[in-house]
Amino acid sequence: MKILSVKNDQIKHLVHLKDKRDRDRHKEYIIEGYRELLHAKNAGASVKKIFFCPDLFLGQNEFELLDQFGCEKIECAPDPFMKMSYRDRPDGLIAIANQEYKDTIELKKILSKKAPFIVVVESIEKPGNLGSILRSCEATGVDALIVCDPKTDMHNPNVIRSSVGAFFLVPMFQLESTVAVDLLKSCHLDLLATTPHTDKFYDDVDLKKGVAIVLGTEQLGLSNLWMEKATLKVKMPMLGKMDSLNVSNAASVMMYEVVRQRRHANCI
Amino acid sequence: MKILSVKNDQIKHLVHLKDKRDRDRHKEYIIEGYRELLHAKNAGASVKKIFFCPDLFLGQNEFELLDQFGCEKIECAPDPFMKMSYRDRPDGLIAIANQEYKDTIELKKILSKKAPFIVVVESIEKPGNLGSILRSCEATGVDALIVCDPKTDMHNPNVIRSSVGAFFLVPMFQLESTVAVDLLKSCHLDLLATTPHTDKFYDDVDLKKGVAIVLGTEQLGLSNLWMEKATLKVKMPMLGKMDSLNVSNAASVMMYEVVRQRRHANCI
Repeated sequence: MKILSVKNDQIKHLVHLKDKRDRDRHKEYIIEGYRELLHAKNAGASVKKIFFCPDLFLGQNEFELLDQFGCEKIECAPDPFMKMSYRDRPDGLIAIANQEYKDTIELKKILSKKAPFIVVVESIEKPGNLGSILRSCEATGVDALIVCDPKTDMHNPNVIRSSVGAFFLVPMFQLESTVAVDLLKSCHLDLLATTPHTDKFYDDVDLKKGVAIVLGTEQLGLSNLWMEKATLKVKMPMLGKMDSLNVSNAASVMMYEVVRQRRHANCI
Repeated sequence: MKILSVKNDQIKHLVHLKDKRDRDRHKEYIIEGYRELLHAKNAGASVKKIFFCPDLFLGQNEFELLDQFGCEKIECAPDPFMKMSYRDRPDGLIAIANQEYKDTIELKKILSKKAPFIVVVESIEKPGNLGSILRSCEATGVDALIVCDPKTDMHNPNVIRSSVGAFFLVPMFQLESTVAVDLLKSCHLDLLATTPHTDKFYDDVDLKKGVAIVLGTEQLGLSNLWMEKATLKVKMPMLGKMDSLNVSNAASVMMYEVVRQRRHANCI
């Protein structure tokens, strides 16, 4: 049965999932877009239901992708589809998936490998920042992203959108800061914090060993907890009059410094 | 005269400036926020009129800052102020300024200095990306940002907001790509383009000489024009399955590589 009306209950249900409370209540989230669904498929995400609107398809392979999913697939007219979409240019595919949280056993396994490369974000607020940090994690081969005490929901549609699929590719764990600190410490990782109150530059410390880059909030930086537990405190050169960078930009520079050092030492 | 009504014509005029066409017609733009106005003042921006709402002030120094401006200052009640604001947490200061474009004579002067460090963004679409690139330019001491054939307006309120004041600190020029290429070439700068189709990594080339980092659009990367004129073609390690980064993140990594090389060679 093709959905024609914007008032259809299934359409309304998906629209409600744009709201965090509804996502939490149903333990579901939204995945929109061909590329995102492709990555979700490859990553084995638990997709529950896909709405599709052939009139809006941008490519040739949409039906082929749909065939790969065993879940319920529902055709929609453009109007109800547009009501669900959160994009300027929807591509005719939007899905509901079950929220899944990886457990710490899996994280411990990752931490036991040689020279793990971890990124921790504390109390991050903006979904777009979390999404683009995920993209940089994916590009730099980060082993796990640990999201501590988040102020944004990691299943926010804007996280998934701005991650351009990296959401499904980077192992992501949500933990309390105290738990994460203990876990990382017990595995002898260096905890790298950025602060202006140090003489060491980020590119003058050895990042070839196991390391967790720890990033604070957009507004306030890192909490005392992380700052006190940090084993490496570094600063980034600030050559202008201000003393701040966008958190995802700072994160990316640090991540690529890890890659640079490891690549030049033939570790990767 | 304190403005009490949201229907006041001056309030309406500022609200209209959120629209690009109105900004272009009046050659004006909006500056919101204490920090932004402080940087605007220090940079000598042409501020025309400031609306203020003491009930919304977050700090102690707002009146002191207002005193530094010789322009018209108009008190507003919270309702009309909220109508103008584009922030979640307005801080009671919002202004109208005259659009100013720096001319190429000033750019030529910058390009004639020793080892200029330039960033070029081609056809950038998202105001938030341009804003955070400005922040990184400010932090890394970029001498000028050249915005070519923009698809976003550099006076968009979200550019100014996401630049957190860097908008007023980084010399910014708007040029056609063909003009910018000729100008940079005539000053013998290296044009550095990022592309997967090369063997050279970005951190294996010499960035201590005069260089322009050229960045393409979010969707399509660099145009043929820039790609053909590039004197250095480099790639960034991509260790995952995807092959893309957020443009402001890629930009920041490249900018900090310039800083890293110059700092280690004692050039800065």
